[in-house]
Amino acid sequence: MTRKSLPLSEVYRLLEPGPVVLVTTSKRGRANVMAMSWHTMIEFEPPMVGCVISNRNYTFEVVKSTRECVISIPTLELAKQVVGCGNTSGQKIDKFKKFGLTAAAASCVQAPLIEECYANFECRIVDVRMVNKYNFFILEVVKAWIDRSQKDPITIHHRGKGYFMTAGETIKLSSRMK
Amino acid sequence: MTRKSLPLSEVYRLLEPGPVVLVTTSKRGRANVMAMSWHTMIEFEPPMVGCVISNRNYTFEVVKSTRECVISIPTLELAKQVVGCGNTSGQKIDKFKKFGLTAAAASCVQAPLIEECYANFECRIVDVRMVNKYNFFILEVVKAWIDRSQKDPITIHHRGKGYFMTAGETIKLSSRMK
Repeated sequence: MTRKSLPLSEVYRLLEPGPVVLVTTSKRGRANVMAMSWHTMIEFEPPMVGCVISNRNYTFEVVKSTRECVISIPTLELAKQVVGCGNTSGQKIDKFKKFGLTAAAASCVQAPLIEECYANFECRIVDVRMVNKYNFFILEVVKAWIDRSQKDPITIHHRGKGYFMTAGETIKLSSRMK
Repeated sequence: MTRKSLPLSEVYRLLEPGPVVLVTTSKRGRANVMAMSWHTMIEFEPPMVGCVISNRNYTFEVVKSTRECVISIPTLELAKQVVGCGNTSGQKIDKFKKFGLTAAAASCVQAPLIEECYANFECRIVDVRMVNKYNFFILEVVKAWIDRSQKDPITIHHRGKGYFMTAGETIKLSSRMK
């Protein structure tokens, strides 16, 4: 893993295609990780992300109280671990241990980076006004990391009921969008 | 185009992978369409979607005042039209005409379906509390349509600066997630 700093202005380029992500948290020294697909960019810079974390998940209360998390982007090689994280609860097991994921120290938050993920975004919760009604958190990415040795990371994209679309070819078009 | 009704409970399966979508609106009989990538599911059923529509876009004021839109999902064949819709403003041109898109009557809203898109979701705005601060709208999908003759629709996913990831292979894993 060659982890390099990624300019915050580039974060949207990794999240906008809609990959399944992992969300790590830490409370009283105990790390946990969940799988998430309900997220969207909210602002380019500083990068802000909106996401739904169900109040049925162990992560919900931890994010609410610590106001921090890390969003990590896994690739196809980690698909089984991602599904494992989605099928289990951090209330009962140590998922890092169970699924062979390596926690690495983040620089701005207590929640850990995931060594095996090609991108890791350290996040702080900045708005909880939509949490009661929709379980919807707004996060600011305060530090971003990327492993540039992974040239064409094959992200996975949730289609429901066990189906995942994997990233195919990338094309270049004459878009003037940012 | 063989357009069939899609159960509302299935809507999340098409949006969760993160495709670029088109958003149509109609005001005083004038239809418009924009491209959008900043969206997420908020609730399964009734399906609710959160999305950012920039206040620099013509669509912003129209959605705010009509409280309706249609979310349509294009495939790779429509990539050039999608980019065209993203590069232009409905304030100046008739994009349906310019890009050869066919508007079809929706059943619950004034905004049109797009005949060429394999899926069309008729939406009503249900929450505007985050619009002033984040341009973030919460929509409810009130009617969904799909063209099931398109077996493996190759959706496009925005990576920024003219790059689009196209949908690759779909895999099945032992996920117990909905």
